[in-house]
Amino acid sequence: MAKKKSITRPGRDLISRELNEVERMLRAESRSEVRLVMQVSHHILQGGGKRFRPMALLLSARLCGYQGRQAVAYATAIEYAHTSTLLHDDVVDQAAIRRGRPSANGIWGNQTSVLVGDYLLFKAFHLVLQNENPRILKLVNAVAIRMAEGEAYQLTRRRRAGLSEAEYFAIITDKTAALISLSCRIGAILGRAGSAREKALSDFGLNLGIAFQLVDDALDYAGEERAWGKKVGKDFSEGKMTLPLIRAYQFAGGEVRKRLARMMAKPERDARDFKAALALIRQHAGLEYTLATARSFAAEAQTGLESFPPSPARQALLDLADFVVTRSV
Amino acid sequence: MAKKKSITRPGRDLISRELNEVERMLRAESRSEVRLVMQVSHHILQGGGKRFRPMALLLSARLCGYQGRQAVAYATAIEYAHTSTLLHDDVVDQAAIRRGRPSANGIWGNQTSVLVGDYLLFKAFHLVLQNENPRILKLVNAVAIRMAEGEAYQLTRRRRAGLSEAEYFAIITDKTAALISLSCRIGAILGRAGSAREKALSDFGLNLGIAFQLVDDALDYAGEERAWGKKVGKDFSEGKMTLPLIRAYQFAGGEVRKRLARMMAKPERDARDFKAALALIRQHAGLEYTLATARSFAAEAQTGLESFPPSPARQALLDLADFVVTRSV
Repeated sequence: MAKKKSITRPGRDLISRELNEVERMLRAESRSEVRLVMQVSHHILQGGGKRFRPMALLLSARLCGYQGRQAVAYATAIEYAHTSTLLHDDVVDQAAIRRGRPSANGIWGNQTSVLVGDYLLFKAFHLVLQNENPRILKLVNAVAIRMAEGEAYQLTRRRRAGLSEAEYFAIITDKTAALISLSCRIGAILGRAGSAREKALSDFGLNLGIAFQLVDDALDYAGEERAWGKKVGKDFSEGKMTLPLIRAYQFAGGEVRKRLARMMAKPERDARDFKAALALIRQHAGLEYTLATARSFAAEAQTGLESFPPSPARQALLDLADFVVTRSV
Repeated sequence: MAKKKSITRPGRDLISRELNEVERMLRAESRSEVRLVMQVSHHILQGGGKRFRPMALLLSARLCGYQGRQAVAYATAIEYAHTSTLLHDDVVDQAAIRRGRPSANGIWGNQTSVLVGDYLLFKAFHLVLQNENPRILKLVNAVAIRMAEGEAYQLTRRRRAGLSEAEYFAIITDKTAALISLSCRIGAILGRAGSAREKALSDFGLNLGIAFQLVDDALDYAGEERAWGKKVGKDFSEGKMTLPLIRAYQFAGGEVRKRLARMMAKPERDARDFKAALALIRQHAGLEYTLATARSFAAEAQTGLESFPPSPARQALLDLADFVVTRSV
């Protein structure tokens, strides 16, 4: 936690008041008469999330000169929506660990994760509805549809070694980058920034989100389990092809490819399989390639902010892009 | 299917054009580029649902003189939302059969049920959003929150023989009756019926929904598996106390109560346990009591419609209440 904070300190300082309000609202809005709903909401919301999406939204709003109260509500709503997808994804992925702690479905079972995920999602809509901005509401829902489709598409492509880079980028754009892009875009809409700047911030968020997921996928092979808070090798064990392995597969010879394809096609992969996959990735510099690609998306994101005059908010967003590609957590 | 149709023929004839449009819209709106999403959506949407909620909405709108196009979109949205909860409930209940066919999670797994459930839910919101009525939107979301809380609450009360009638009614009101009530209420809002009639139709739907669930819970002990399309004894095997058994438990002696409490507390209940529970229910006329209670809620629903002048739509709603308590499917 200390490391995370120090890296993003400049951005956090700038919007610390709003971020505190987000925390308060996250606690207040997840109160439920049903104790189980409270417990699980609390467990996952207080589980050490980076509040990356709220930060992106609040800094974008600040960059566009927005001074009103709605940014905090939208930032909270986006964090709720994101948290809801974490709960549902843990069921989809049968994950045992989330943010360094046992996952909600590991403790309370799939049933609870599904229902509390639904609950948090409706709470997200509840917050969005209060501001009565039909345009933002439609954008939020459209992204929600994309995220569900992206996750479902990824599910159908599991255990197939031949996943192309194009398919991979389509998946991570839908399931991760679209929501981060929307977070930035909402900031621009609130600040009445005009269509060009709205597009610029939307693109910034998209590139940032892709970089974010690329680093996530690299850390899944190389992260330190304790600092990162997830189980290393999770994607591989679930049969998800991500860029490090896609790259290695592309460059591998015919025999190695066949072996990898068989390995991926198995219902389960063990520690020996993981070691073999990691060796292949190292041989073809799959991690370096993935991180270089991430840096190039982060740089692209930063370039897109040049149309804005320098300001502390712009600097904080540039720092956020740096954080994304230098983080080890 | 034939039986269902013949019972509700009067209502269906009156709104057959709109119901056909609902069917068309259900098919059209569940098109997705992701084949899995299409397949599962089709499987569950074309699985022989009664379209009970769309009927309630369309007939209520008709009763209030509504002539516009929005009723069909809302009716479709409500059916989507309902279908979404079926998919998630099947994960929660680990159900193998739904509407007489293998459940979606039985075929495709929990993961798919979660994601396609999410997808259909967002599609529901998508349709509701198109009509840009913030009041209806907020009502839909508030009911969604209630439904998730109701399901979660039921989950926490499983395997406890001592569930009170009050707790039971709170659960079925949240998880079933609230959405049926809202269906009727939307019809009234569309028809600009005024607050008194909106309240009358909302209450009608609430009573209708409670009657509907009571009959469902009786059929779970007494239905014929083939006609009903669900597995008989499902609630009991999942450890859910419903009114037939709650009634029997209330009237049982101390020793029998203790035995039932132990039976319910077990992780699983087998066919012998079910037979014992059914014998207890028969001994204390639990099914008769449940069906009599259902009839009284249906009658209450019908009485509430007396403030409306006679019309084919009113008659169809009265028939719908009759159907609910006479159905064997």
